Amino acid sequence: MPYFLPEDYERRRRRAEAEMAARGLDALIVSDPANMHWLTGYDGWSFYVHQAVVLSGGGALWWGRGIDAAGAERTVVPGTRIEGYADHQVQNPELHPMTDLAGHLRELGLRGARIGVELDTYYYTAAAHACLASTLPDATLLDATGLINWLRLVKDPAEITLMRRAGRIVEAMHARILEVAEPGLPKHHLVAEIQRAGTRGTSEAWGDYPAIVPMTPSGLDATAPHLTWDDRPIEVGEATFFEIAGVHRRYHAPQSRTIWFGSPPDHFRRAEAAVLAGLEAGFAVARPGNRAEDIAAAFNATLRGHGFEKDNRCGYAIGLAYPPDWGERTVSFRAGDKTVLEPGMAFHFMPALWLEDGGLEISEPLLITERGAERLTTTPQSLFVKT
Amino acid sequence: MPYFLPEDYERRRRRAEAEMAARGLDALIVSDPANMHWLTGYDGWSFYVHQAVVLSGGGALWWGRGIDAAGAERTVVPGTRIEGYADHQVQNPELHPMTDLAGHLRELGLRGARIGVELDTYYYTAAAHACLASTLPDATLLDATGLINWLRLVKDPAEITLMRRAGRIVEAMHARILEVAEPGLPKHHLVAEIQRAGTRGTSEAWGDYPAIVPMTPSGLDATAPHLTWDDRPIEVGEATFFEIAGVHRRYHAPQSRTIWFGSPPDHFRRAEAAVLAGLEAGFAVARPGNRAEDIAAAFNATLRGHGFEKDNRCGYAIGLAYPPDWGERTVSFRAGDKTVLEPGMAFHFMPALWLEDGGLEISEPLLITERGAERLTTTPQSLFVKT
Repeated sequence: MPYFLPEDYERRRRRAEAEMAARGLDALIVSDPANMHWLTGYDGWSFYVHQAVVLSGGGALWWGRGIDAAGAERTVVPGTRIEGYADHQVQNPELHPMTDLAGHLRELGLRGARIGVELDTYYYTAAAHACLASTLPDATLLDATGLINWLRLVKDPAEITLMRRAGRIVEAMHARILEVAEPGLPKHHLVAEIQRAGTRGTSEAWGDYPAIVPMTPSGLDATAPHLTWDDRPIEVGEATFFEIAGVHRRYHAPQSRTIWFGSPPDHFRRAEAAVLAGLEAGFAVARPGNRAEDIAAAFNATLRGHGFEKDNRCGYAIGLAYPPDWGERTVSFRAGDKTVLEPGMAFHFMPALWLEDGGLEISEPLLITERGAERLTTTPQSLFVKT
Repeated sequence: MPYFLPEDYERRRRRAEAEMAARGLDALIVSDPANMHWLTGYDGWSFYVHQAVVLSGGGALWWGRGIDAAGAERTVVPGTRIEGYADHQVQNPELHPMTDLAGHLRELGLRGARIGVELDTYYYTAAAHACLASTLPDATLLDATGLINWLRLVKDPAEITLMRRAGRIVEAMHARILEVAEPGLPKHHLVAEIQRAGTRGTSEAWGDYPAIVPMTPSGLDATAPHLTWDDRPIEVGEATFFEIAGVHRRYHAPQSRTIWFGSPPDHFRRAEAAVLAGLEAGFAVARPGNRAEDIAAAFNATLRGHGFEKDNRCGYAIGLAYPPDWGERTVSFRAGDKTVLEPGMAFHFMPALWLEDGGLEISEPLLITERGAERLTTTPQSLFVKT
């Protein structure tokens, strides 16, 4: 059952074509699965083989592995042309599938065209680019990394509905963590409950898979941001942070919370106070007309006033996402990011502190509205303590 | 607690260096997270930013985002050098982190070296390659895609132990599916149980995250191989296939089974008979000295004898994996793959049939031993039927 309407896709494609025209592009090859989805509705775990959506003025072309054409037929908006390549071109060093795409581009009259490619996208490899360049020697390949990502920045009302539903899901996941987490529980048993809660979702929205698995490190492991779980039991006298996302129809609401088991030491309480004050300062300036870097500046100044420092970005744009990243890879809350905030933009405000003896994460997914910033959840905003 | 020993990593590094020498490479930049893990033990969900392991004769260098250096310190084998880059280089179009890696390579005396790169690897983008080429203009960058993957093909005894444990996990997951799947159950509730069972694992092995989420399509959706779930309830009179993997310490045992709810029609029973006979024919020739294509030939001839055709590969190498693919991207069971089978190789024998009205998947993870092929699970080998 498609959620978005044909006119939603039509509007998105026209916005993309306008941007292509502004950059003098005759065609655009889109390899980022989230961008492919946003443009056509295509949804499948097939991004481990080469695939793309091509825009060239006359509607969209979905191109991928032959066996995935059936998935395209079942998910893309009507009017999208579907072309599959032969299976012996899959992971075959002798025969790169990009030669097949080049054939379609020639048929479309793009032999000598100016073609945009997503040069710094996970699923557009250096070999894919080299193959395309050599099989289309008269074309000019231009970097269009982020072209579609930036168009996705302001969400339309239907997308905002999905993000609010995702917010309810992550809220339910944190509630479940608080319910079951206790000293002695092996970490993988806890993660199993988190995943179950995330996929079950809420009564109004089923849970989709997150672009990143739950991060749940404890104690010294939590000084590192991206370690995944094992079977060690939760211990008294340490913190565990939970960096997770609720997801509905590929739209993400990430949110982190931290639980201290036992009685938190003073410096952890001070870190909590600093982060909460920093969040408040950031929310106060998160409104249309201000800039992304204003949020970072307000947050960092407050943090420094409390005696803490954070030298990496404290937030990023969110929305539609596929592994390995739930960020949109556009706006970051950091000095130098001059993006002017507009209603409909969504961010993960992520003021994580990785301390010498543990990690503290209290983060918020938020939506910029006409009046300021709307929280996408009602999860209590504090360090959680369980004894 | 590291599972592999320093001498395991030492042996792997020496094998890689021997292959580099054979190809005349002074250095190798490894971007595939599974290859990074195999060479150093590094394990973290940080592959959404640029990172690498560099081999250049004098031990391994782990290079990645500054905040991930803490995760490297906690996972890599002692003796690995760790270098992080500044956070403002993360997802910043103006300042590609590969310029930082180029600086380290110059310090290592590799300014004019012959350097291997994994040209067709997900996380080695076209932009990363272009940046490296322009900041190291005197170096020669050579395609080394798959160099490490092929070294991983024959598993050592410690790896085989992990794969057998993963086999027990996927066995438990299928048992859980049979227990809870029933008409009327919304698909996402079923997936929630599958994920929970996979992460809980068995009494001997905790479950790690799979490189691909559960594929569980029903009815006509199962004519497409890579669609993920939604909330539609299971219905009587259709098949649902379950393509899932048990995972322990990143080692995968994928396995598929299919359930028909109600009474399966004749053509589905005929497809079952064809696939089971084809599996048997494939297993009969899956032994040291035979070739990968021999398994495909035996399977396909048997399938044709039963009146069915399959025109895509029917298996691939498995082992250590990260999203988006649990295959090793080396050997495929298909015509033309002349790889000679050896004890210690592991494969997912994957004779899926996507029919006009549904999908049938009965697949097996297997290990080549001195005497033939060992199944990694005891999951009953048939079409499951629930009424």
